Parts: sequence; C-alpha cells; structure tokens
Amino acid sequence: MPDTVELSADHVEPRERVEDALARVTSLLRRQRLVEGLIVDQVGDGGDAALRNSAVTQTIKAELERTLARLHPADIAFVLEALPLDERLYIWELVKADRDGEILVEVSDAVRESLISSMDTEELVAAAETLDTEEIADLAPDLPQEVLDDVFRGLPVDEREELRAAMSFEEDMVGALMDFDDVQVRPDVTLEVVLRYLRRFDELPSQTDQLFVVDRNETLQGVLPLPKLIVSDPRLTVGAVMEPPVVKLLQHEKADVAASAFERYDLVSAPVVDTNDRLVGRVTVDEVLDFVRQRADEEALAQAGLREEEDIFASVWKSFQNRWTWLAINLVTAFIASRVIGAFEGSIQKLVALAALMPIVAGIGGNSGNQTITMLVRAAALGQVTPGHARKLVRKELTVALINGLIWGGVMGLIAMLLYRQVPLGLVMVLAMTLNLMLAAIMGVVIPITMIRFGRDPAVGSSVMITAVTDSGGFFIFLGLATLILV
Amino acid sequence: MPDTVELSADHVEPRERVEDALARVTSLLRRQRLVEGLIVDQVGDGGDAALRNSAVTQTIKAELERTLARLHPADIAFVLEALPLDERLYIWELVKADRDGEILVEVSDAVRESLISSMDTEELVAAAETLDTEEIADLAPDLPQEVLDDVFRGLPVDEREELRAAMSFEEDMVGALMDFDDVQVRPDVTLEVVLRYLRRFDELPSQTDQLFVVDRNETLQGVLPLPKLIVSDPRLTVGAVMEPPVVKLLQHEKADVAASAFERYDLVSAPVVDTNDRLVGRVTVDEVLDFVRQRADEEALAQAGLREEEDIFASVWKSFQNRWTWLAINLVTAFIASRVIGAFEGSIQKLVALAALMPIVAGIGGNSGNQTITMLVRAAALGQVTPGHARKLVRKELTVALINGLIWGGVMGLIAMLLYRQVPLGLVMVLAMTLNLMLAAIMGVVIPITMIRFGRDPAVGSSVMITAVTDSGGFFIFLGLATLILV
Repeated sequence: MPDTVELSADHVEPRERVEDALARVTSLLRRQRLVEGLIVDQVGDGGDAALRNSAVTQTIKAELERTLARLHPADIAFVLEALPLDERLYIWELVKADRDGEILVEVSDAVRESLISSMDTEELVAAAETLDTEEIADLAPDLPQEVLDDVFRGLPVDEREELRAAMSFEEDMVGALMDFDDVQVRPDVTLEVVLRYLRRFDELPSQTDQLFVVDRNETLQGVLPLPKLIVSDPRLTVGAVMEPPVVKLLQHEKADVAASAFERYDLVSAPVVDTNDRLVGRVTVDEVLDFVRQRADEEALAQAGLREEEDIFASVWKSFQNRWTWLAINLVTAFIASRVIGAFEGSIQKLVALAALMPIVAGIGGNSGNQTITMLVRAAALGQVTPGHARKLVRKELTVALINGLIWGGVMGLIAMLLYRQVPLGLVMVLAMTLNLMLAAIMGVVIPITMIRFGRDPAVGSSVMITAVTDSGGFFIFLGLATLILV
Repeated sequence: MPDTVELSADHVEPRERVEDALARVTSLLRRQRLVEGLIVDQVGDGGDAALRNSAVTQTIKAELERTLARLHPADIAFVLEALPLDERLYIWELVKADRDGEILVEVSDAVRESLISSMDTEELVAAAETLDTEEIADLAPDLPQEVLDDVFRGLPVDEREELRAAMSFEEDMVGALMDFDDVQVRPDVTLEVVLRYLRRFDELPSQTDQLFVVDRNETLQGVLPLPKLIVSDPRLTVGAVMEPPVVKLLQHEKADVAASAFERYDLVSAPVVDTNDRLVGRVTVDEVLDFVRQRADEEALAQAGLREEEDIFASVWKSFQNRWTWLAINLVTAFIASRVIGAFEGSIQKLVALAALMPIVAGIGGNSGNQTITMLVRAAALGQVTPGHARKLVRKELTVALINGLIWGGVMGLIAMLLYRQVPLGLVMVLAMTLNLMLAAIMGVVIPITMIRFGRDPAVGSSVMITAVTDSGGFFIFLGLATLILV
C-alpha cells in the first residue's frame, strides 16, 4: 500500500513550534518595515500606492499569509497576543476571514476587544456564524448588540434556544462551561445498533469519551464509555453495559464544583442535568483546563491589584483604568497608617530612631500575616477549612508567631540596641515585633474565616486587609510602647 | 428486560458529595469523642479496654468504615487533608489496606508525609505494590530507601526499567507526567483486527482516547482516535485512517510545554517519544490538569513566601521551617530601608511630618511596581515577552506612572499641604511620589526582563526585589528631596 506509506511519512512531520512561528512572523514584520522605510525614503510620503504594490512587500505579505494558514487557530491567537497593537491588527487582516470566529474564541478578553473593534458588523456576523452556540455565548459580552441580533436571527430555532440558555449563565457557573455536543443513545438498543448509528457520523464531537444514555424523557440513565462500547459483545444492549455517571453536574452549580470533580475523578467529559435529572449538555475537560488556568491567573492578578487580565500592549488609558482602584485603596490604608504615626510625632521628635525602626515592625507583620492568609485561602478553596477549626488554627498560628517574634524580634532588638546604644529601645523592638506578629496571626485566621462565614470569597481583599491591620497596628504598637517606656 | 431497568435505577443514584462525606466523618468522630469522654468519666482512665470494646464506639467505628469504603480514593484523600493530625491518623487506620496506595498518590506532599510516617515498612511495600510504576515514581521521594529497594526487587524486569526511567525525571519534565499505558497498534492491520484485539481487554486504560500507531522499531507513525476507529469502515487498514499526532512530546522537555499544548489543542492524550522518534509513553489530560493546578498553587504560595504547600494542621515546627526564609529575607530588605531612613534622621528631627508621610511614598511605589511585574510575569509565562519589546514596555509603563504620580501624588500632596500647612511639603510629596512610581515602572519592566534574559524564572523573587527597591528608593527620594528643599 504505497499510498499509506506516503501518507504516514507526510503525517509525522512535526508541527511547527508556536514560538518559532512567532519568531518568523516578527522577523517578517521587521523586514517589511525596513522595506517600507526604504520606499518612503526614495519616493517620499506620497508614494503610498507604490509602497503597497512593491514586489518585495507583496512577497513578504504572501509569506506571512502562508505562515498563518498553516497555524492552528490557538497558535494564531498566541501570535496576536504577543504583538503590539499596530502589528496585531495588520496580521489580523491577513488571517482568512473564515477563521476569524475560532480565533476570537481563543484570544484573551483584552486582545479580543482590540480585534473586534477593528471589524465591522458584517465581518463580525460572518465570524460568529462559523461558531457553535456555546462559543457564540462566550463572545457575546464583547459583541455589539446589533451583531448579536443579526446572529440570533440567522440561527435555527433549537440553536436559538441553546444560545439563549448558554447566555443566561454567569461566568462561574457550570452552564458557562457546558456544550451541547453530547451524543445520546437509548438503553434498550444493542451495541451493534449504536456502532452502526455512530458510523453515520463523519467524526464524533471532540472530547467524546462516552455516550449519554437517556430514556424517552431525556432523563439520564447512565453513560456508555467508548472503550466499553469497543470491548463489549456487540449483541448486548446499552442498558446491560452502561455505567453510572461518575458525577452529574447541575447547570447552576459553581464551575468550581465541576473543576474539582474533573481533577478528583480524572474525567474527560461529564453530563449536565437540570433539576429533573434531564440531560441538557455536557462539560469537557478542555473547558475545565481553561477554566482552572484562567481562575489561577485571575487570582494572581487580583493579588497584585489588577482588575483583569491586561494586554501588555494595552493603551496607557486602559492600563490606568485597570490599576487605579487598587492604588487608591492602598493610598487610603497608607494614609490611615500615616495618621497613626502622626499621633506619635512628639515621641519621634524626642527619639528619632523610632522613625527608622518602625517600618521593620510593620513590615514583618504584613509578611507573616500574608503567609497565614495565603495558606488558609488555598485550603479554603479546597473546602478544607471549617469554622469549627478556627480556635485550633489560631492557637497554632499564635505559637508560630511567638517563636518568630522572639527569634527575629530578638535579632532586630539586638541590632537596634547596638546601633543606638540603648538597651530599652532593643527591648521595645522585641516586644513590638512579637506583638505585631501575634496580631498578624490572629487576623490572618480571623479575616478569611469571617469572610467564609459570610459567604464571601476570602481570596479577594484578604491581603489588603491584613496589610492595613499590620501596618497601622505595627506603628501603633511600636510607637505606643516606645512612648510608654522610653519617652 | 427487567434486569436492565433494575440496574439503571440503581445506577443513577447520585454519588455522595465529598463535602457531605467530610461532614459525616467529622460528626461521627465528634460523637465518638463524646462517648469516650463519658466512659472515661465513669470507669476512670484505667478503663481503656472497656472503652475500646464498648458497643457504642464499635458501632461508630463500623459506620466510619462503611462511609470510607463507599468513597472514591480521591475523596478519602480530601477527608484526610481536612482533618487535624490525630483524627487523620485514626481515619487512616480504618481505611482498607488495599486502598492505601491509591490514596497516598492522591494526597498532598505534606499530608502524605504524615501518613507515611505512621506506616511500617511492610505496610508501605504492600501499598506500593498495588500501584503502577509511574505512580510508585511519584511516591518515591517520600518513601524510605528500604521500602523502595523492596518494591524494586518485587517488580518484573520490564517494570523495573519503567520505574527507573520514571524516577530519572525532574518534577517539571514531561517524563514526570508520563505513563506507560499507551495502547499500540501496527499500521498494516485492518480496523477489524484492531477491534478484535481490543475486545480481549476487559477495559482500556483510563483516558484512552486514541491508539498509537508504531512500526516494528516502535517508531511513531501516527495515532488512531477511538471515534475514528468506530466510525470508519472496519475493512480499512490502520495506516489508511490514522492521523498525524497533534503534538509529539519529548521526555526531557519542560512539562510547561506539554501543558500549553494540551490547553491550546484541547488534547486528552499525547504521545511521548525519544530523540529517535520512538514511542516511550503518553501523557494524559488528568495529569496535565493536576500539574496546572499544582503549579498555580505553588506560585501563589511562593508569592507569599511559603516554600511549599503547607498542611494547615502542620506542626508548629514544620510551619516555622516553611516560613522563616521569607521572613529573614524581608527583614534584611526592611533593615536596609531602615538604614536609609537613619541617614536622614537629622532632617526628620527638624521636620517630623516627614516620618508620617514617608511610608505613603514607599507604599505606592511597591504596589504599582508589583502590578507591572505581575502583568509581565504572566505574559512571560505564556512566552509573549521578548527582550526586543523592553523599550516599548518601559515607555508605556513610565507614562502610566507619570499619570498616576500626578493624580495620586497631587491628591496626597494637597492633603499633606492642608494637614501641615506647608506648601513646599506638598510639592515635595507630589514630586517624590511621581519619581518613586517612575522608578517602580522602570524596575518593574527591567527586573523580570533581565531575569528572563539570564534564563531565570521571573515569577520567583521579582516581587521581593521590586518591593526592596521601591521601599529604600521611596524613602531615599522623599527624604532626600525634603532635605534639599525644605530643611
């Protein structure tokens, strides 16, 4: 079979690494800019037409188009993300229009916005029409209403229903991860019939590792994993070989629940049912993987006070908008700390060493408190922190704080003593650091546990709060003790 | 077929939520403690035997065992993680010995250590022997050498080879995610033959979405997705319907590469080859999902200065070990900042308002610098930051810093002016805040890009560095300007 050999030899050609593709695109763009520069030098700024039609730029453009055509949509998305705005939009124009939709689904929100704003209604409608309903729902928040209306009118009735359903879910619900590509079979047919039914497809939906067994009312009866379908006797009925689903997800559950289930039970797909146990769709592991990654990114960004994923080439104005809230909040807490210091200005004037030492006391409290909070927030995210354990946790954290306070406070107290040749100053330093560490320990447990008790996400804001407490608290403890003992 | 109906009715019984299981275990443990307390009250401390044999405690123990037997190993792992040490070890004893292995694989490193230290050599060897080679390799770092030697001797020769190979990879290599459960077929057989071959298995390895097509030398020729196997004409040969693998991973590549590929191309499994293109194993999406989650957790912990995942019920000593490095590093940077302030003690004595205002200048620089760094580190992790863009990024960040400085510096300057009734003090405040924000912007780009250029991971340590620079720098700029202009 020479045909097969030919095919396989061709097939194992390794896919180009996306980093290499990016490097090639970047170097082609640079060459093009050089050429354009030369032409402008020769014919002046008016030579626009000549420029556009020059043989060299045409060759480079064709080479870029060829490179893009070979790339997976996710890889084109990667290249677009890595380019500054002007080059990004130039490349976006070179991408074949029929691939626009799948690429828009892949890029980050920030970059998607920049691409969509460069397209007109017609292009957007055409792009959306190449997508599945759940993908359209993903794009929907970024699309102009006009485009959405057009797309909606273009859909068959059942898909309109699906789109409406998909758009009704919050981003953090199971429904937002769901697709409608579930293959359904009845329990009373034989595997032979199922196999014949499947052969009528050209291919199965991606990530299909199991078929969903439903009765006439679409109630979920069980699942039929493809491997089981393959290894079982074809004369058996679906009902005889089907298995219970490892989990059944509900549309309105938190997506976190789905993510934990996929991680815990190593799932590839899972059925989604409504409250009447009727199958409405499925969640697949690729969506879960994206969700987990995105959630982790959001947390890291929120930790640093960025409201959302920021395109590194975003405009100055967009960057400002994304960052100002956090800076403002921190200014407020810094101002409060500053007023605490202000209250002790008399003591500082008498003993100016206090000014130099006080940031050390505040700093170590913030660091230590953040350690406690981070540990608790992660355990809480896994559902492992119950308010019942609060006392046990506080006791442990207090002991750790006491040890840290005596050791590091001792070290710093000794240094302060030697530096300023005052034994009492050293003792105040030890005492203040120990007390501020203990304050950090208590608040590090109390803040997240209180937030959990009130149904808030402890990951958001805990870190600002603890730093505010340990800064103002640290200054107060240190300057207060110094005023009592030294001044 | 009443049998089927019976079966299906039984099957759709929903699995107990793991949170409910945890709540039940906790309440049973509490009841047992209560009963034990009563018995001790009645018969005194010597009544140990009576206590252990009392009918009530026996009933509770049996109920606990029944609950545990019904749970998935990953769910038992979850329950163990959520319990304080004494209760954790009690529950661990109640778990059937033949499940020990699969549970040890599921728990976090910290909890695994606590469980392993409660088991003797024999128990550990027995637990390890229930596992696949790649799972044993995962446990290996935590097992005593003696146990490893015993396990090794008990393995057949080919599995010894696999174990040796699996243990040779660093945690962040593709090889560490790999398993050896790849099902291989030859290109020249028909699908019919493949189907017959597969029916000889009771079930296929989990996460089998494709078969790997290899020639006589084990060279990878292509892949045969199960859906394709099902929908194609059984008389065709494997070679005629096989597809090129979407990616081929190399054993010694970074696991990050595998994770990106799975995310980008929505894979369920991918072949791993050696440098001669010979198939050595496969990576599956469940391992990738765990890797992504774990990596995100590690980053979040590292950000707060925890060296590793900490069991919230860890001993005080373990917690101290996990946290001291970070506190020590921060004390050093805080001490340097303190010396900077110390150099300006004369100025502070003359104008004590400086002491109250200086933390505001330092603080906003740290916050803003961390925003820049976080954004860059995430973009860098995606491979989207090239040193060639450094200048463009610095220019943009400087502009944002300038705007933030004028706005927030202006606000704070105004407040300082009103508070201390000194116009020049307000102006120094505006100037110092703007300059420190610009310092933060430059260092926020330069630090991570320099680390990338030297092949270091910018996620580790960037945040400490920027805070050190903006603290000391902020104090220096503010106090220096004040000394020049005001004092």
